[in-house]
Amino acid sequence: MGKIITFGEIMLRLNPEGYLRILQAGCFMASYAGGEANVSVSLANYGEETAFVTYVPDNAIGESAINALRHWGVDTKYMFKGGSRLGIYFVEKGASQRPSKVIYDRKNSAVAESTVSDYDWDQIFEGADWFHWTGITPALSDNLSEVCLAACKKAKEKGITVSCDLNYRKNLWTNEKAKEVMSRLVPYVDVLIANEEDAKDVFGITAAGTDIDAGKINSEGYVSVAKQLAETFGCKYVAITLRGSISASDNNWSAMLYDGKEAHIAKNYLIRIVDRVGGGDSFGGGLIYALHNGYDTAKAVEFATAASCLKQTIEYDFNCVNVKEVESLMGGNASGRVQR
Amino acid sequence: MGKIITFGEIMLRLNPEGYLRILQAGCFMASYAGGEANVSVSLANYGEETAFVTYVPDNAIGESAINALRHWGVDTKYMFKGGSRLGIYFVEKGASQRPSKVIYDRKNSAVAESTVSDYDWDQIFEGADWFHWTGITPALSDNLSEVCLAACKKAKEKGITVSCDLNYRKNLWTNEKAKEVMSRLVPYVDVLIANEEDAKDVFGITAAGTDIDAGKINSEGYVSVAKQLAETFGCKYVAITLRGSISASDNNWSAMLYDGKEAHIAKNYLIRIVDRVGGGDSFGGGLIYALHNGYDTAKAVEFATAASCLKQTIEYDFNCVNVKEVESLMGGNASGRVQR
Amino acid sequence: MGKIITFGEIMLRLNPEGYLRILQAGCFMASYAGGEANVSVSLANYGEETAFVTYVPDNAIGESAINALRHWGVDTKYMFKGGSRLGIYFVEKGASQRPSKVIYDRKNSAVAESTVSDYDWDQIFEGADWFHWTGITPALSDNLSEVCLAACKKAKEKGITVSCDLNYRKNLWTNEKAKEVMSRLVPYVDVLIANEEDAKDVFGITAAGTDIDAGKINSEGYVSVAKQLAETFGCKYVAITLRGSISASDNNWSAMLYDGKEAHIAKNYLIRIVDRVGGGDSFGGGLIYALHNGYDTAKAVEFATAASCLKQTIEYDFNCVNVKEVESLMGGNASGRVQR
Amino acid sequence: MGKIITFGEIMLRLNPEGYLRILQAGCFMASYAGGEANVSVSLANYGEETAFVTYVPDNAIGESAINALRHWGVDTKYMFKGGSRLGIYFVEKGASQRPSKVIYDRKNSAVAESTVSDYDWDQIFEGADWFHWTGITPALSDNLSEVCLAACKKAKEKGITVSCDLNYRKNLWTNEKAKEVMSRLVPYVDVLIANEEDAKDVFGITAAGTDIDAGKINSEGYVSVAKQLAETFGCKYVAITLRGSISASDNNWSAMLYDGKEAHIAKNYLIRIVDRVGGGDSFGGGLIYALHNGYDTAKAVEFATAASCLKQTIEYDFNCVNVKEVESLMGGNASGRVQR
Amino acid sequence: MGKIITFGEIMLRLNPEGYLRILQAGCFMASYAGGEANVSVSLANYGEETAFVTYVPDNAIGESAINALRHWGVDTKYMFKGGSRLGIYFVEKGASQRPSKVIYDRKNSAVAESTVSDYDWDQIFEGADWFHWTGITPALSDNLSEVCLAACKKAKEKGITVSCDLNYRKNLWTNEKAKEVMSRLVPYVDVLIANEEDAKDVFGITAAGTDIDAGKINSEGYVSVAKQLAETFGCKYVAITLRGSISASDNNWSAMLYDGKEAHIAKNYLIRIVDRVGGGDSFGGGLIYALHNGYDTAKAVEFATAASCLKQTIEYDFNCVNVKEVESLMGGNASGRVQR
Amino acid sequence: MGKIITFGEIMLRLNPEGYLRILQAGCFMASYAGGEANVSVSLANYGEETAFVTYVPDNAIGESAINALRHWGVDTKYMFKGGSRLGIYFVEKGASQRPSKVIYDRKNSAVAESTVSDYDWDQIFEGADWFHWTGITPALSDNLSEVCLAACKKAKEKGITVSCDLNYRKNLWTNEKAKEVMSRLVPYVDVLIANEEDAKDVFGITAAGTDIDAGKINSEGYVSVAKQLAETFGCKYVAITLRGSISASDNNWSAMLYDGKEAHIAKNYLIRIVDRVGGGDSFGGGLIYALHNGYDTAKAVEFATAASCLKQTIEYDFNCVNVKEVESLMGGNASGRVQR
Repeated sequence: MGKIITFGEIMLRLNPEGYLRILQAGCFMASYAGGEANVSVSLANYGEETAFVTYVPDNAIGESAINALRHWGVDTKYMFKGGSRLGIYFVEKGASQRPSKVIYDRKNSAVAESTVSDYDWDQIFEGADWFHWTGITPALSDNLSEVCLAACKKAKEKGITVSCDLNYRKNLWTNEKAKEVMSRLVPYVDVLIANEEDAKDVFGITAAGTDIDAGKINSEGYVSVAKQLAETFGCKYVAITLRGSISASDNNWSAMLYDGKEAHIAKNYLIRIVDRVGGGDSFGGGLIYALHNGYDTAKAVEFATAASCLKQTIEYDFNCVNVKEVESLMGGNASGRVQR
Repeated sequence: MGKIITFGEIMLRLNPEGYLRILQAGCFMASYAGGEANVSVSLANYGEETAFVTYVPDNAIGESAINALRHWGVDTKYMFKGGSRLGIYFVEKGASQRPSKVIYDRKNSAVAESTVSDYDWDQIFEGADWFHWTGITPALSDNLSEVCLAACKKAKEKGITVSCDLNYRKNLWTNEKAKEVMSRLVPYVDVLIANEEDAKDVFGITAAGTDIDAGKINSEGYVSVAKQLAETFGCKYVAITLRGSISASDNNWSAMLYDGKEAHIAKNYLIRIVDRVGGGDSFGGGLIYALHNGYDTAKAVEFATAASCLKQTIEYDFNCVNVKEVESLMGGNASGRVQR
Repeated sequence: MGKIITFGEIMLRLNPEGYLRILQAGCFMASYAGGEANVSVSLANYGEETAFVTYVPDNAIGESAINALRHWGVDTKYMFKGGSRLGIYFVEKGASQRPSKVIYDRKNSAVAESTVSDYDWDQIFEGADWFHWTGITPALSDNLSEVCLAACKKAKEKGITVSCDLNYRKNLWTNEKAKEVMSRLVPYVDVLIANEEDAKDVFGITAAGTDIDAGKINSEGYVSVAKQLAETFGCKYVAITLRGSISASDNNWSAMLYDGKEAHIAKNYLIRIVDRVGGGDSFGGGLIYALHNGYDTAKAVEFATAASCLKQTIEYDFNCVNVKEVESLMGGNASGRVQR
Repeated sequence: MGKIITFGEIMLRLNPEGYLRILQAGCFMASYAGGEANVSVSLANYGEETAFVTYVPDNAIGESAINALRHWGVDTKYMFKGGSRLGIYFVEKGASQRPSKVIYDRKNSAVAESTVSDYDWDQIFEGADWFHWTGITPALSDNLSEVCLAACKKAKEKGITVSCDLNYRKNLWTNEKAKEVMSRLVPYVDVLIANEEDAKDVFGITAAGTDIDAGKINSEGYVSVAKQLAETFGCKYVAITLRGSISASDNNWSAMLYDGKEAHIAKNYLIRIVDRVGGGDSFGGGLIYALHNGYDTAKAVEFATAASCLKQTIEYDFNCVNVKEVESLMGGNASGRVQR
Repeated sequence: MGKIITFGEIMLRLNPEGYLRILQAGCFMASYAGGEANVSVSLANYGEETAFVTYVPDNAIGESAINALRHWGVDTKYMFKGGSRLGIYFVEKGASQRPSKVIYDRKNSAVAESTVSDYDWDQIFEGADWFHWTGITPALSDNLSEVCLAACKKAKEKGITVSCDLNYRKNLWTNEKAKEVMSRLVPYVDVLIANEEDAKDVFGITAAGTDIDAGKINSEGYVSVAKQLAETFGCKYVAITLRGSISASDNNWSAMLYDGKEAHIAKNYLIRIVDRVGGGDSFGGGLIYALHNGYDTAKAVEFATAASCLKQTIEYDFNCVNVKEVESLMGGNASGRVQR
Repeated sequence: MGKIITFGEIMLRLNPEGYLRILQAGCFMASYAGGEANVSVSLANYGEETAFVTYVPDNAIGESAINALRHWGVDTKYMFKGGSRLGIYFVEKGASQRPSKVIYDRKNSAVAESTVSDYDWDQIFEGADWFHWTGITPALSDNLSEVCLAACKKAKEKGITVSCDLNYRKNLWTNEKAKEVMSRLVPYVDVLIANEEDAKDVFGITAAGTDIDAGKINSEGYVSVAKQLAETFGCKYVAITLRGSISASDNNWSAMLYDGKEAHIAKNYLIRIVDRVGGGDSFGGGLIYALHNGYDTAKAVEFATAASCLKQTIEYDFNCVNVKEVESLMGGNASGRVQR
């Protein structure tokens, strides 16, 4: 099997300890993460060969970002040095009725300022058979949406499978801009991932009967969303994660995978949240692993959902679980008994 | 609008980290708080002009108490220096069936030893239109009950609205003493606040059909309590907070506000508790803000209840939320979804 | 009343902070604990005179283990120095669907390498009227199963009550070996304690209609297990703890005590877990205290169950609660209201 | 006496705990500081009325910066909200032969993007008789050098004393740009402060016989530097701090103040460094306090030097000492005996 | 050999982490200590049988104080429960020119309010041959000076050796009161300990040629102080600790012991201070151990000085070293090489 | 240039925070290190390609050891999984006169139980031109001394340079055993490294005029030691590190390198120690880098000495510095001024 390449931004994540608000913080826990880097870490933890492509500044913060991925076994040779700063995001963990908050300080980051000529995709894709990116990357700058396009084209040329998580971020671009750019990029995508809101925010495609804020989700409605996406853009697979947010502390979590013929809806997990940031990315990591290893639709979405359920019981963005642990949960062992 | 003056004791709060018991503590988290100071912090966070009146010792602990309030925007010019010590309380956070515990070490505090001549209420009330105190203050010493009386009289003289939270503390005085003293003070009060137990403990006024330890509450019964209080002491508003304690980790939380004509019972919140100390004070802060800004009875109690729901998802006594956040919860957004 | 002697291994317990996985840990919280030592700490907290018998290495780690028990009032004069290392175990706290994990590194510990001639049970049992050990001790080494046998015989000789918690550990020995060794030892036991799985793992005795991983428990079925154990080995009391593991965060917890005539099943507690390691040991500590003080069957199992419910709301293995706190919960006060 | 206005940038300071390198950091201690804000905090601690002028983003990071100054008694009403981000700097504490490192990530900060029309100096200077800024501020952006000029002109108009710390930062601008801009601004300055390197870096004015990296300083040579500065720009006072860096752990520290007639060189302190960042600013704060209160040249520089010696024994940028503590050290009490 | 009884106050010690000032503290490290308790811990660490006599409140703080001593092997059966609070002291660690600070909050402590009838010295002294107290105890209250007198008389009656550390605390009493009370008590003392200042503060006895604040000490002059004390009060031994405080970070440390005939001055140690609080007490602990074990004058003072040198390299009040470690330093091994 | 292979044991290092003793530790900082792994990390930080060869258990502790090296860029593909446990060592940092202590708990580790057939040196040495091991490895077990011999022979066969640090550990073997085993292995060594004591402990070769515990070192005497080693075993280079331990806080540090003709003694550094564990290994790392890159004798030993000086100002075993930082110190920049 080939290598899995992911491309995007890695940031310094700063969060207060426990349930402290940013306004109360005397220190910030420091980690390094990002939507695509998180996917690579998931894949490395499953034993896949995977490399992350980005730019980081040539200082101790940039080096720390490289070390953070290398730590988990991600190949970092395409984490180039250049540019002036690493993006930063502040995470405040919510509890009960108090929502989690994220403050982004990611403008002018090294990767956002990189340009098409900074990447040699022929070299990067050597030995690869899968390419993953998310909707955050083209949203960071016009440069980067060009880079994405170049990468997608090269991937197609080489017969590399392309996956994309829509990951709409309203503070990075408008719905209009997102639609325009993504409409050019998604046609290259084989495996498309979205959450309950993305399809609507980016392409205006909706599922009836869902009230996100009330924690109610109409899973069946999402099948039609998936079908519309698959038909519009010619994707082989469309996956939609289904979060039923009861409160910041308790979430229902499931997902649906449509393979062009049938949709399989995974088992639902009622999760007591430890840290839900990175939950969607861990679904992506699980799905890519499953499809890369030839799982059928049902097993693939069950694997991805169980994997991302576990992520939400783990601190920070990275999903530090291995295949055996995911399979144990998939197999029905959700009782949390002590394993000695 | 005028300034809101609060008067009482500020203490050093010491609590072990997380769920550790005091017997297990190798360090104590240090904060500075008190029933009335907490109200001023809530008000400052809502953008109100507010000053806290007290005495603290002239050492680094007393200065830290001043800094702690100034930090959040409370006017500290009436936090006078004098006396020998700052009161201290130790908080041990409960979990599930294990109750939270508070150990007070507040005797002989600077403010408890201050006397009537230490306060110039004419000066303090300059520019103020609201005065808030709680039943803890007169319980601290006979001196202080005299000071409270003097302040209440001066407030009435100047047409300043007076609010009071009964806040009965059985380790500070007996029910008899409380009744005697409070019966002299409450007639000056326009807005009276109590919890499920206070009216009974202080004045022997009860609501039928309530078993506090079993987490069952008879909201309607409290309307009659409120009416009795309003009629006995001539208060314009009587608010009663309604806590249904399922366990130390899960509480139902609501409140009732009676305006002399009608009683409005706020929406109930099922809260996963982060820190419930200061919950009642944050209700007081929310209520004063709402009434000071002319909210009607229903909206006032909804605001105060939502505000104090949020407080209980936040560590330490202070309610670090702004008006927008309270309004978002009031408006029904309780799903805790990440806000980016 | 006489002293209560416990015998076994004390280890260094290392766990990451909060919900961090071992793979994420930059530091480990250090405590010292073990199945039998935990029982002694419970008993000391209830005011019993109790001594723990073991070997620890003559270095700062061994001394810390001694200090840790002395801290809580356990008599440590039979914690002998000798041997080369203290056993270690790593605990990773689970959450929601993610199970807790324990990694043992206890081979070749000082106590496991001690031999029959290292113990003078005549001297150790001076003034004692109760002896407690668990199935972990004979599992540690053949030496130790001989020591257990010698201790049990001496205890019988002196009319000392013997209690034992089966505590089967599959990584220490096989079911076959356990059955063989325990079949020689349990005949000396007056009070036998087991969890839902032990009776099956060690003696192949089962309760119909129970699916542990699904959190479903058939309490009545366990009465027949208890009867079989009592009859086979001639025990006066057989207690079985009943854990219904909904998830790593939420457990049902109850227990059953059979006195040769009747079985009493204790009230069930739905616990939000803080730390469940040591839960079974705290049941043992509660039960021994209750029987040592002449409680009847019903009251004894209620005390032990309430005690062990509280333990699971407390960090680390030791049950830092006193008799008054257990009695308050037994008496029905489970609402967790703040105690000032 | 009037208020003291300071103007500049406040940043989020992030440093690993203790002597950890940034590459090793799992968390960062968070504080808020900046060259001019540090001066205001010093002054507030000495009982002066002082306000800090700046722009911060309207989010929890910006609010935290405001709270951080209000905490210590700085008037924050001119800390305006606007712009997109707060500048950040990372500090790594050196030890022995390993130097401290600072990584700046301050581009595009709220204040750097503010313009002349964002400030109403007439209003800001109301009640003020002193204005302080440093060479960092005009270096941040061309906008800000215009704002500085406007402020200086207005200050002169109103007879307000102007002080400036050259504070050359080579990563913000070139020597040439610095010289050009500062040559326009320094003529408005009454009290000029520099360290051993600034005069050379900005204006090319040097002191013979000094080798900074070898920890050797020729104090007398700096008198000539001061004279040249005073004559060139017409300053009433020129102060130069004199650091003899033996290692990252041990520094000699003194300073010189020239009043147009005579130069006084302060007592030298051999400091075991706790945190030297902010040392120069604390000298500025001490000097302004001393001159604002009419100290003579000798006493002024002794006060400022003792104040800044103490700062370097304190963690973080702010100099948390009061006048009495500075005077005690000035008075010769440097033995560090316990004060009970 | 007999037991060593110490009598006095144990307090909760609260100090910020590292070199943080109290004004900067977000948490306080919690330990339990006191001049006499510290001596008992030293003795227990040297293998002596020792009990500490005091009163603590019957709450989790009082229990923690008991546990803290029991932890190290001190017999706590005479730590009686009663009274309302445990005294508290805040410690701020100095560095370089910044002095350490101690804020006491010890008024109305449980022990200070205990009276003569609360102690049965006949019972307490059973099996004891040494009694140690310090000048802090009678300074706490008139009650306690009566208790001290009663204890001293009983000790004499029983032929128990009495030792006392003058330990003058100017915030507890005046020089005059101290002189009056101590003049009645010291005649019962066999072994008297003082530091460079105590003899002067309490009895007006001085050593010429010493300037404490300048770190200069005239050791020989102290011999005459010792002789005067020995002659005035009939003590067998008088020890004086000699601290040369270069700065808060570096101290010279030595001591002198006079045995009625000769004075031996111990080797001087230049100490880089980790925590000097408790340094004098650790000298007392070392001296009592040495004399209790029949060391000659020279060896006794060398042991006590080396012991207390080590204490000052250890955090918190307790001297966690054993006899072997003290002897290694006495023997000249001060190079600090790693011991594997 | 080829890859550098190191072979040995990696352990879990546990140390209390700051200057706390193990007896006081409530938590242990966790890192993973070992004499040879430390060398690989140094080399990776200098940009060399390097792999570490060992066995670790197949659990979260073993995986963490792998991640810890991968983090810094060491190739971990020869860190095989197998065996039952990872060795552990506890480090207690000394201060001033109190020495640092190390407690080893490394018996029966995965690597110690591995045998000759577990390693395929032909494969491991592919692409390598340097092999490094230390005297700890053969001391761990007879198995491992056979593995060392096999590796050395294979290395010679392939023309790979072999370096060895004698690293005598008296708790692993006797002088006699060490001499016997090392006498068989050192003849394969090209570059031999020792500290002041190793040559004497292993081979009985001494330098006159040196008293290690008194911090006095006779550098010239070590030249004769080096010559004797070079001649006896035919080594091309012999390096000796020279530590003058003034106290646990202050050390002189230098080194000597003999190249068969001349000896160069490096500049001496007076270091305020942050963490000296790993100091010798960082010298080895620096020396290998220097010789691998063709530095001459003088420059090589200066590089290695400067590198290891920096290590001792850094927490934990790993030397987190790059070539530029070492060169800056070599170049004379030891003043520790802030680098912005």
